[in-house]
Amino acid sequence: MRDLVAGWRRAGRSVGLVPTMGALHAGHLSLVRAAAEENDQVVVSIFVNPLQFGPGEDFERYPRDFDRDRSALDGLGVEAVFAPRVEEMFPAGSTTRIRVGGLDEVLEGAFRPGHFEGVATVVTKLFWAVGPDRAYFGQKDAQQAAVVTRLAAELNTGIEIRVCPIVREPDGVALSSRNAYLSNAERQAATVLSRALRRADEAYRAGQRDSKVLRALLQAELAAEPLARTDYAEVVDPADFLSPGRLAVLAVRIGSTRLIDNHLLGDRFQPLP
Amino acid sequence: MRDLVAGWRRAGRSVGLVPTMGALHAGHLSLVRAAAEENDQVVVSIFVNPLQFGPGEDFERYPRDFDRDRSALDGLGVEAVFAPRVEEMFPAGSTTRIRVGGLDEVLEGAFRPGHFEGVATVVTKLFWAVGPDRAYFGQKDAQQAAVVTRLAAELNTGIEIRVCPIVREPDGVALSSRNAYLSNAERQAATVLSRALRRADEAYRAGQRDSKVLRALLQAELAAEPLARTDYAEVVDPADFLSPGRLAVLAVRIGSTRLIDNHLLGDRFQPLP
Repeated sequence: MRDLVAGWRRAGRSVGLVPTMGALHAGHLSLVRAAAEENDQVVVSIFVNPLQFGPGEDFERYPRDFDRDRSALDGLGVEAVFAPRVEEMFPAGSTTRIRVGGLDEVLEGAFRPGHFEGVATVVTKLFWAVGPDRAYFGQKDAQQAAVVTRLAAELNTGIEIRVCPIVREPDGVALSSRNAYLSNAERQAATVLSRALRRADEAYRAGQRDSKVLRALLQAELAAEPLARTDYAEVVDPADFLSPGRLAVLAVRIGSTRLIDNHLLGDRFQPLP
Repeated sequence: MRDLVAGWRRAGRSVGLVPTMGALHAGHLSLVRAAAEENDQVVVSIFVNPLQFGPGEDFERYPRDFDRDRSALDGLGVEAVFAPRVEEMFPAGSTTRIRVGGLDEVLEGAFRPGHFEGVATVVTKLFWAVGPDRAYFGQKDAQQAAVVTRLAAELNTGIEIRVCPIVREPDGVALSSRNAYLSNAERQAATVLSRALRRADEAYRAGQRDSKVLRALLQAELAAEPLARTDYAEVVDPADFLSPGRLAVLAVRIGSTRLIDNHLLGDRFQPLP
């Protein structure tokens, strides 16, 4: 991978990296399109990173279909798919770990201890392996995008982190590889996440600025869905995910599937059809 | 710094980095000479890294003399001295940290909590900022060299870590910027470190392989010096600094100055004159 990029560099070409765990959907493809617009060469990495899954999470059953993923990338101008094996990325005995303190301890970090350490570590390794000019992440995983943006800046990587908008189904559900786990009834119930975000967004646009009130709106909407159990629903500052702000963030379990979603209140909300 | 190296890269030149905290002595200069032999361009970084000093350690009084350091590098083929300010390397609010688990918790890591996290973090940032092919460290800081070697491999940096031999004074004392803190009597007492290592080395060459016996020899020699107080004296495996092995490692306080030294038993020991 490094030799391939070194050749592009010698030819003066810019390189965009789209790190994924595979199970590609239209959200991932929007990242690939953005990368293709802004770089001469695009690399997509596919790696289901064991470090970012906790005990009892869905590492084993996470969907893996390399051929389908490759086909999904056809015609999008992807020059290389980098798909290392777990033993290549994390040889036995590897203990080097990267943390973005503070930001990795709240909300998703509190509910998934070690998750962002796993993300930060694998992303740094992918950054070294590929050496891109720009790397593309989805706003859907807002806190991950914030962790990676801080990491890239604070480690002097020189890599520009581009965060692309959430892509939603017509009924508002944010695209996620984990939506595949949902039964029909659960898939219907999953609309409650974006409905709650829209409710808070409407209140914000109507002038409501009290993040406690906005949070109560989120929680009331989520509570009305019998299949949903809320891990958290908060309205926070996107810089630290802790202070009050205007980023509404949700984590909700629908049956055994844990979904997350978010919206920067007042920003364009993808309209329902 | 990155632009400068990018230009060298385009011209197909290799780059060696010698990371230092300044206060350059003949040990550092041996690293610079090795780098100049093996690379087209040599960068020396000078940065007294606050992250690797604990509370009550000598960050404030650590010797700093940039002009003297620059002069010491004259004629050695150094193309650039990279000397960032603390606020450039660690802007307020930076919380990204790197650890090499296990290896950073024993011996030096146990006596200086957070020290190797500080080393690993600053070295990774220097690696990103400079992007060398090879980086040069002294065997004098044996555990640091091991931490950096593992970090460079495990983060996929592609950077080759070269560890250069300890340079000693004629009386055996390993060169260290901290030797400048010693009074005349303390400087004389400091010979006990290398004397203890030679004692263990002689026993090893005579066939002694029991690391407990070798350790007892180290400790007995150190105990005979009234000005010395031993933090640790162990004979360990250089892979983990924990299992029994043949690397003799010492940390000894002479007055208020803490010195470290080490020797791989059975390897060439720089002979006393």
